[in-house]
Amino acid sequence: MGTSPFTRPCRLLPLSLGLFQGTLLLFFALFVTYDEPSAQVEDANLVANKVYSTFPFFQDIQVMLVVGLGLLLTFLPRYGLSALTHNFLLLNFSMQWALVLQGLLHHFHHGQVQLDLHKLLISEFAAVTVLISVGAILGRTSPCQLLVMATCEIPVYLASEWVILNCLGVLDVGGTITIHVFSCYFGLGVSKALFRAGQQPLHPKETPTPRSDLMSLVGMLILWVFWPSFVAVLCQPGDAQHRAILNTLLAMSASAITTVVTSSLLERDSKLSPGHLQNGSLAGGVVIGAVADMAMPPVAALALGSLSALTCVLGFRFLTPLLGRKLSLLDQCGIHNLHGLPGILGAAASAVVILVASKDTSGSHFSQLSPTGGNASEVGGEQWGDQGASRQALCQAAGLAVAMGTSLLGGLLTGAVLQLPCLAQPPQRLCFDDSLYFKIQDQAETPRPGSTTEEGALALKEQI
Amino acid sequence: MGTSPFTRPCRLLPLSLGLFQGTLLLFFALFVTYDEPSAQVEDANLVANKVYSTFPFFQDIQVMLVVGLGLLLTFLPRYGLSALTHNFLLLNFSMQWALVLQGLLHHFHHGQVQLDLHKLLISEFAAVTVLISVGAILGRTSPCQLLVMATCEIPVYLASEWVILNCLGVLDVGGTITIHVFSCYFGLGVSKALFRAGQQPLHPKETPTPRSDLMSLVGMLILWVFWPSFVAVLCQPGDAQHRAILNTLLAMSASAITTVVTSSLLERDSKLSPGHLQNGSLAGGVVIGAVADMAMPPVAALALGSLSALTCVLGFRFLTPLLGRKLSLLDQCGIHNLHGLPGILGAAASAVVILVASKDTSGSHFSQLSPTGGNASEVGGEQWGDQGASRQALCQAAGLAVAMGTSLLGGLLTGAVLQLPCLAQPPQRLCFDDSLYFKIQDQAETPRPGSTTEEGALALKEQI
Amino acid sequence: MGTSPFTRPCRLLPLSLGLFQGTLLLFFALFVTYDEPSAQVEDANLVANKVYSTFPFFQDIQVMLVVGLGLLLTFLPRYGLSALTHNFLLLNFSMQWALVLQGLLHHFHHGQVQLDLHKLLISEFAAVTVLISVGAILGRTSPCQLLVMATCEIPVYLASEWVILNCLGVLDVGGTITIHVFSCYFGLGVSKALFRAGQQPLHPKETPTPRSDLMSLVGMLILWVFWPSFVAVLCQPGDAQHRAILNTLLAMSASAITTVVTSSLLERDSKLSPGHLQNGSLAGGVVIGAVADMAMPPVAALALGSLSALTCVLGFRFLTPLLGRKLSLLDQCGIHNLHGLPGILGAAASAVVILVASKDTSGSHFSQLSPTGGNASEVGGEQWGDQGASRQALCQAAGLAVAMGTSLLGGLLTGAVLQLPCLAQPPQRLCFDDSLYFKIQDQAETPRPGSTTEEGALALKEQI
Repeated sequence: MGTSPFTRPCRLLPLSLGLFQGTLLLFFALFVTYDEPSAQVEDANLVANKVYSTFPFFQDIQVMLVVGLGLLLTFLPRYGLSALTHNFLLLNFSMQWALVLQGLLHHFHHGQVQLDLHKLLISEFAAVTVLISVGAILGRTSPCQLLVMATCEIPVYLASEWVILNCLGVLDVGGTITIHVFSCYFGLGVSKALFRAGQQPLHPKETPTPRSDLMSLVGMLILWVFWPSFVAVLCQPGDAQHRAILNTLLAMSASAITTVVTSSLLERDSKLSPGHLQNGSLAGGVVIGAVADMAMPPVAALALGSLSALTCVLGFRFLTPLLGRKLSLLDQCGIHNLHGLPGILGAAASAVVILVASKDTSGSHFSQLSPTGGNASEVGGEQWGDQGASRQALCQAAGLAVAMGTSLLGGLLTGAVLQLPCLAQPPQRLCFDDSLYFKIQDQAETPRPGSTTEEGALALKEQI
Repeated sequence: MGTSPFTRPCRLLPLSLGLFQGTLLLFFALFVTYDEPSAQVEDANLVANKVYSTFPFFQDIQVMLVVGLGLLLTFLPRYGLSALTHNFLLLNFSMQWALVLQGLLHHFHHGQVQLDLHKLLISEFAAVTVLISVGAILGRTSPCQLLVMATCEIPVYLASEWVILNCLGVLDVGGTITIHVFSCYFGLGVSKALFRAGQQPLHPKETPTPRSDLMSLVGMLILWVFWPSFVAVLCQPGDAQHRAILNTLLAMSASAITTVVTSSLLERDSKLSPGHLQNGSLAGGVVIGAVADMAMPPVAALALGSLSALTCVLGFRFLTPLLGRKLSLLDQCGIHNLHGLPGILGAAASAVVILVASKDTSGSHFSQLSPTGGNASEVGGEQWGDQGASRQALCQAAGLAVAMGTSLLGGLLTGAVLQLPCLAQPPQRLCFDDSLYFKIQDQAETPRPGSTTEEGALALKEQI
Repeated sequence: MGTSPFTRPCRLLPLSLGLFQGTLLLFFALFVTYDEPSAQVEDANLVANKVYSTFPFFQDIQVMLVVGLGLLLTFLPRYGLSALTHNFLLLNFSMQWALVLQGLLHHFHHGQVQLDLHKLLISEFAAVTVLISVGAILGRTSPCQLLVMATCEIPVYLASEWVILNCLGVLDVGGTITIHVFSCYFGLGVSKALFRAGQQPLHPKETPTPRSDLMSLVGMLILWVFWPSFVAVLCQPGDAQHRAILNTLLAMSASAITTVVTSSLLERDSKLSPGHLQNGSLAGGVVIGAVADMAMPPVAALALGSLSALTCVLGFRFLTPLLGRKLSLLDQCGIHNLHGLPGILGAAASAVVILVASKDTSGSHFSQLSPTGGNASEVGGEQWGDQGASRQALCQAAGLAVAMGTSLLGGLLTGAVLQLPCLAQPPQRLCFDDSLYFKIQDQAETPRPGSTTEEGALALKEQI
């Protein structure tokens, strides 16, 4: 491998990343500070309670993104180190970049930016979009390309989120539209623009082994367990948050079982596909985000979970190959099946729930439709009439359109940028391999002087 | 493997599972709703506090069951995917099934079932019994059989739990008797009825490798860390919960060290057995459940932890082989050693603690025996006289007898049902193998066209 | 391996460990009890709130030490079981030993020791020092040696911590000086005294494989995620704790990115070294401990995180080989780079922050320098003048000196003790191998009777 004629990315990655850290330091030095410490005891208690009510959720989300999502991506057997590391690097880079942009954009006119846990959380949510989008092009891109992609995606996301939540007043407490749909079509746009040739032959290192599937499955389970925290963290404390947690648990549970059913039925001998399991079981978490805190009956959460898992598995089986053939679209992790289709389903469901809920409760005095997402305060608490509900349902649809439109456009443009030769996209034959990015001391390849063949064979046997 | 004459389970699993999901949807649509949203601010705060005080414990328990227990079962080197997936599937199925049954049985006469986090938690506890019982027959059964087993076990468990906690008033906050003893003997009953031939020859795929032992060890560590949450979640907040956490921590710590001591002493060259470690370290958590919140001195928790680990390791070394020879009893994971023996020990300890505590404190005015389990409210808070204590101690013994009786009987009957040919029990030679249930693309078996022998050898070397 | 002339540790380990458990039981029986249960409802609420505010942090720290640190140490490909198990055993042993010593020393004059979660936490912090120190000699020592080392290190640590926090009043809420610096130099001292020959040739089993690097990386990520809990658990609830969490998050994020930058720049072809990544990303957590709750601007946390990662990676690249050559110092895990250098940096930073903060705020009426560590209450809340700040800064320096002095001395003495032949240090050629301490059933080595060569080859292929 040392004799490869392929020119390595060399110094571009560390230098630009180092420059970014320097800029970040400068930005923080000039503009960012902490909240004034609370002067009174009551305020201190308030801060303490806020920490105790937010921090456990925050930690759960960190585990999801750093450990869970990282492990989920290790299904490529020889790309585990890279998948984990790039995921980790991108999370940190994107979060810092989102902090900078949000600081500049939203808070600059107030002078100093006052950092708190909530702002970090919002930046982390922005970073999630990058981590999802990357799934479409996993293993075929250099870290340089991924960082450029993150640099482009974060501002587009922030703009899109601002339009969707603040201008349109869309209700989406779990990020179904703003995060999942957006990141899916951004990733697909990048993939389409970057791999125009498309439909590349199956790479030998692309096939998961039982062992890499196992690691990926563990990642899925970690994501599955902590997903309720992801959906509920921004809900209003109290009933809405309680309901969001329950709805998410029900939806996740239903999608786990439906995935097994669907995946078994698709195969002639009823065998399960690990890939279906790794993705379908999470579809319920994607679909429930937009409706988790709304006043709908529990059965709706179960039904949505089942339906989303069904859609996801069918998407893997039929839609992904079709898109590959017709549109020459590469989608390495199948993000369209896990984030795209269930996201659209969730957006549609939110419109329906809003319409139905308003009819159910009109004229009833104990109606308690409380569609207050933590990030849609202007409509919170208000009771909708029939007309208000129709308008809100339309807004949900408009939000979906905005998310899909901006992300596709942004993704296509970003993909075009990623083709720059200086970003050192690895050639096809070197894809999916850790040894391109990591200094790996391969025992088998470099036998020590003096080792006989017999020792080598013994070592081989012992290592297994 | 494709030419195997063995008839695969085919469509039975997905069809029946799909039918179950449909029935669940119907049940939820007709009978289940959420609590009325709280109308007042104070109530909302109450709900919020309840969420913050229960949800972290709930998440910990989810991690234990989904990730920890799943990984613990991956000690079979070629059965990891199946162990993780079946555990995950059974957890979801059993939880939903317990929700349905509890809804029908306990709450039907109140009309609508109001779902909340506490009810989900209770259902999850019911599901735990299935996950433990399965350990006895791990790797030798089809998913169909496991689902039928869960279908039978949950109602028997609910009945047994109702008798033990509500009729007998047994104190068992951590489920030592109701969960661990019950599930152990249910599993052994199933194993006995299902594998009458017994004493099957050691299967070549049954032997753990260092790598699968490592994964299983990680699972044990996850269970070990979060066990205090499992024991303390149903305790009354305040002193009882605090004491339950401390007692569990002490017992777990003592059993970790005692396991190393005992396992080392049993081997001629003082080597540790990974299997002993994976199980013995958890015995302290099993034993402490029945007494965790009682007013006993800390030394009792340490002593019980040590004693249970000793029993568990000795059980692995001497009792399991004996049971195998004399009763032809198969116990794949050794659940009798981890859940049965320490469970009985814990039940006995609870009787002793009740008797001793009542004597210690009789006549003393500052006595504070507070045996209030979250699920034994009728005796809570009351001070026992000597007589009351004797009666309660007898109840504990009666509870143990009920748990063992119902579970053994239920298990034997269930095991007989599992022999139905349509449930597709895998033949001996196909046991312990993921490829029976998973679509695994085995690189080594299917060399791509054009690959030379040299490339294959290189791939082999590189993969190691 | 069975014919090895090397005399195994035999019965010393289990017997002494068993003796220790017996002594512990006796100690607990005589001296330890629980707090009196609270008589009034308000007190019960207070206890409940204390549990809810401490227990999640405590669980996070348990995950870090048991799972995260354990996995981090599995980078030695054939020593994973031992690394995980020894870490687990040492944690439990050291915690119990610290409980005993603290009970005897600090509380004996009050009669009964009242156990609570806080005391367990403090003992756990003491145990951390042992787990870190062991990194210097990982893989080359027997469990007996490790237990003797823990036995010696805990009292030295408790004495050193008492001097640093109580006599000198050093501010160090995250244990930068008391834990990280101390444990690093203790470990180096042991290593120096134990391996006088030093500079041993590279052992063939010492080289990580991609797979063991992956497991170790997962361990790093778990530590990375939960580190804020470790730093903030002893902070005063409210602003100080909030600030400690934010500062730690910022420092960890900066060190993650700086590690990638530095490690890439050091290699000619910009490849990353997994070892750098596994350690450098955590350096930010080490450095921030001493200043996390101080009133410094967020940029300082970012800068410290970056600087510590830079120091750590440079240490791995240049200092460790240099120390190996010049001082014949073995440092298997590079604890000097992860705990020593960033720890010293953090201590220096704490002095600077104290000096700068006192100047910044002198004469300003809204100054809120609140340097109240949970363990330095005597200076808490007080406003420093210039003079007070200088004195406090000097104390920080003195604390660093005390930590380094006592630990080096204690380590050298302990290392000398570890050379006792009865402790059964493994010979060089048997190092880094699980099979020395675990009963491993190696499939490859013991082919079953009747298996043909072909089957063996197939098994070999399938296992890969």
